[in-house]
Amino acid sequence: MVKVALAKGRLEDETFAFFKKCGFRFKERGDRSLIVEDIGQRIQIFIVKPLDVPTYVFNGVADAGICGTDSIVESQFKLVQPMKLPFGKARMVVAGLEGFKPKNGTIHVATKFPVSAKTYFESKGFDVKIIKLHGSVELAPIVGLAPLIVDIVQTGRTLKENGLSILEEVYPISAVVTLNDVAYRIKRTEILSFLERLKRGIEDESPR
Amino acid sequence: MVKVALAKGRLEDETFAFFKKCGFRFKERGDRSLIVEDIGQRIQIFIVKPLDVPTYVFNGVADAGICGTDSIVESQFKLVQPMKLPFGKARMVVAGLEGFKPKNGTIHVATKFPVSAKTYFESKGFDVKIIKLHGSVELAPIVGLAPLIVDIVQTGRTLKENGLSILEEVYPISAVVTLNDVAYRIKRTEILSFLERLKRGIEDESPR
Repeated sequence: MVKVALAKGRLEDETFAFFKKCGFRFKERGDRSLIVEDIGQRIQIFIVKPLDVPTYVFNGVADAGICGTDSIVESQFKLVQPMKLPFGKARMVVAGLEGFKPKNGTIHVATKFPVSAKTYFESKGFDVKIIKLHGSVELAPIVGLAPLIVDIVQTGRTLKENGLSILEEVYPISAVVTLNDVAYRIKRTEILSFLERLKRGIEDESPR
Repeated sequence: MVKVALAKGRLEDETFAFFKKCGFRFKERGDRSLIVEDIGQRIQIFIVKPLDVPTYVFNGVADAGICGTDSIVESQFKLVQPMKLPFGKARMVVAGLEGFKPKNGTIHVATKFPVSAKTYFESKGFDVKIIKLHGSVELAPIVGLAPLIVDIVQTGRTLKENGLSILEEVYPISAVVTLNDVAYRIKRTEILSFLERLKRGIEDESPR
């Protein structure tokens, strides 16, 4: 059985729908169950916070993980990523109040994604101070904590409602599969068969 | 007007109920509003993630903050804490699978509260490896990520449902008021009057 850490929330429903397309079958899910097995006992799924997926995979508690590009970047773990999945599309962006003009000196940036933000601004040669937040990042420019934020955007609705505009794209996001490299050696046949099933699911979705 | 950062979630409703007891009046709250003013325009409340309250206060964007002891500890900011509030009681605890016995060597501990966990185990002379998680920490002992967790407990129901027992108390938690020290000097009269109102609210609640 392949143990899969799956990102709770945004990707959870899409992944279960995709798993069904790949031929996995599930019983009705109880609301609070964090561990789910398919009926054929091919996979055991741990439902965890997105940023925790790389932790479960890196520590070998899960053989594979499914999460967004952003969670991999933030974890700073070097993980094998054999496959992009055809859902969970979003963008990591820099946003600010409409009409924002940067001044000289240190730029203050509020974000839940400090690694992504720091790497981006430093690569552009800026002197940046990252203010790490845990949520409601769109509040930061409004109340004056930082003029800029780095955050994930799907529709852009939350930004717009708060008078914020997208200024730059940091990187595109999609759901990805990651693997624990020790598990990949020890459970190679099982993991290859899991990946093969996912590949067939992706091919079924592609336009012909 | 005193700007107050308030911890979203567990403390939010209790704090608004307490504010009403202290004589503050509010309009009906829209579901998604993160900024709320009282009708008398004495306070402006920013509703933010618990762990972000100290960040808003430390950076001077909020004059005062209301959050749990745990958020102050984790922030590692030195903040003035003039007052404990009579709600938000909980405990930071060590928990593990029933019958867990520590072996020699490094203890692995999964937690959302790495500062609290590290400080506690090191103070007891243990060699500890902290595995930082962002949620669903009760899963960690079950799937073998770490035999122990450090987490906040109110009723103990989640622990029990997952076959976990409380092994030690790390510290007791309650809601506290914190202040930005620059704001306290500049807006002294306003902040003192705010604290005075809260004090009256606490006295009203005390058994006579």
